[in-house]
Amino acid sequence: MSHITSQEIRLTQRPVGLPKPDDFEVATVSLPEPGSGEILVRNRFISVDPYMRGRMVDRKSYTPPFQLGEALTGGCVGEVIQSNHEGFTEGDHVLGMLGWREAYLSDGKGLQKIDPSLAPLQSFLGTMGMPGMTAYFGLLEIGKPQAGETVFVSAAAGAVGSIVCQIAKIKGCRVVGSAGTAAKIAWLEEIGVDVAINYKDVDNLTHVLGQACPDGLDIYFENVGGEHLQAALAIANNQARIPFCGMIAQYNATEPVPGPNNLGNIIGKRLLLQGFIVSDFMADSNRFYQEMGQWIQEGKITWQETIVDGVENTPQAFIGLFSGENLGKMVVKV
Amino acid sequence: MSHITSQEIRLTQRPVGLPKPDDFEVATVSLPEPGSGEILVRNRFISVDPYMRGRMVDRKSYTPPFQLGEALTGGCVGEVIQSNHEGFTEGDHVLGMLGWREAYLSDGKGLQKIDPSLAPLQSFLGTMGMPGMTAYFGLLEIGKPQAGETVFVSAAAGAVGSIVCQIAKIKGCRVVGSAGTAAKIAWLEEIGVDVAINYKDVDNLTHVLGQACPDGLDIYFENVGGEHLQAALAIANNQARIPFCGMIAQYNATEPVPGPNNLGNIIGKRLLLQGFIVSDFMADSNRFYQEMGQWIQEGKITWQETIVDGVENTPQAFIGLFSGENLGKMVVKV
Repeated sequence: MSHITSQEIRLTQRPVGLPKPDDFEVATVSLPEPGSGEILVRNRFISVDPYMRGRMVDRKSYTPPFQLGEALTGGCVGEVIQSNHEGFTEGDHVLGMLGWREAYLSDGKGLQKIDPSLAPLQSFLGTMGMPGMTAYFGLLEIGKPQAGETVFVSAAAGAVGSIVCQIAKIKGCRVVGSAGTAAKIAWLEEIGVDVAINYKDVDNLTHVLGQACPDGLDIYFENVGGEHLQAALAIANNQARIPFCGMIAQYNATEPVPGPNNLGNIIGKRLLLQGFIVSDFMADSNRFYQEMGQWIQEGKITWQETIVDGVENTPQAFIGLFSGENLGKMVVKV
Repeated sequence: MSHITSQEIRLTQRPVGLPKPDDFEVATVSLPEPGSGEILVRNRFISVDPYMRGRMVDRKSYTPPFQLGEALTGGCVGEVIQSNHEGFTEGDHVLGMLGWREAYLSDGKGLQKIDPSLAPLQSFLGTMGMPGMTAYFGLLEIGKPQAGETVFVSAAAGAVGSIVCQIAKIKGCRVVGSAGTAAKIAWLEEIGVDVAINYKDVDNLTHVLGQACPDGLDIYFENVGGEHLQAALAIANNQARIPFCGMIAQYNATEPVPGPNNLGNIIGKRLLLQGFIVSDFMADSNRFYQEMGQWIQEGKITWQETIVDGVENTPQAFIGLFSGENLGKMVVKV
């Protein structure tokens, strides 16, 4: 087999505010033959996720920043098309972290083989992957939902939020979700969310949330920050739990955004706010795969996905996350 | 015994911003003879505490608001001077919640007998009482200090903060405390605080806190809110714990005060923020009395107190809390 060329997406400059197309460029590289102990992987689906925005900033965080002029990275599902590695054969499907490109060479480290007969290939980037695991552990390990409690989920139609909503329903909770388009609201109602709030149609979110939660709020799954957090703090019951998963409303802010003005509720109501990242729970990932796989087979968990075609459209797919263009998980088909 | 008169302090109007002397009035009431099953208690020390500011506002909280025209309430230590109750005899000392007055009748419910041979009478309002218990459970149960960790305490010279500092030292931690006067800073150094920061002398608290914490910050004991919280979030290590005890900087605000603009750290650093009130831990109070009593006897915990004379000066003592006039626990001797 001769050399293969691969298109990849590089960061040309660090975005200021909402990322723009010219913060990115498409480059074509030529990949050599895989050496001994190496495999060549052709990506089939690549993931775009809000957390990647943080890595575009040059600052210390839980993952190092992306470097200018280098291909970006992120979750991806691919197929082994050439193998000089005894652990992999051609046709194997693997989950990796070298997204934002068509193909890559690997020594197999960090790759996880997946079984495409269990669930659609791209779902290993969504419900059966990192977003599903984020929803699962954040809700269950930090939120600790009890039957009859009320759970509020922001960005409820997103890849994480929609799974949180459905797990909360499985656990017997009343679920209130917020999202920003009529299509998302309709879908939330379809998957059993008790009250779906279009926050863009609402003057006073605290008031509307209060009406949606006649028994108050026991868990707020935080995906967006800002006004949503303020409303949740106001409506929260004593000893409510707030897993902090994301703050997408602030990822593109060019000036620091002040926090809610009602943090005093943390004391008076003895609230728990706890941040987490999914990798903290990797040791328990088998439990997730088993339980989530079963829920999917039983039809208790469903999902929508937004599939964009072509690696060259990855930047536009990523940018679209921040204007809410995706319904459910956004992936790029390569 | 004939009728006894008692001076008491009433709220005349709900304070706006910092309470003023004319938000309060002194009234004299005549107490009848104690009936069957009743006792007459003469207060010896009454407590003024920052949390009382919250109860002066007419809003729903974990304790109902004070009512205008009625005597205020709060922690107090008194002596039984007349008893028609089989559980009490004259000369007994009791801890109660009917402060802000010279004397009161009681059926004994909610009163706790105390042994003045264990510690000075007024310390049952401080180190051996609610503030000490707040420090103890907040630091140990939420902060969970480990030897070698760094603990930052705001309002560190206060009734709660100074006990937090000393327990953290007992647990083998590096302790950084902030306070607002030179006398407080000197005292913090005396009780073994590793770095004492006079926040009023500091331009950039985040910068100064960072220098004081070369290994970062593992626990921030939150007493004040605002800039202190912002600095702690910035300097915090991954998985740091932040017990939320109070936000005195904001209690007198007439407009809602925005929160820190760096709450995103909660996610990236997987922080835990947890509010609590001391009554949540009442079931474990014996553990507190035993361990704190031992630490006091061993000289490992010391304290300062500010004693104001005369029930009529209670409002001024209370107001003084917010300008930092107290060193350690502020009490009124009746």
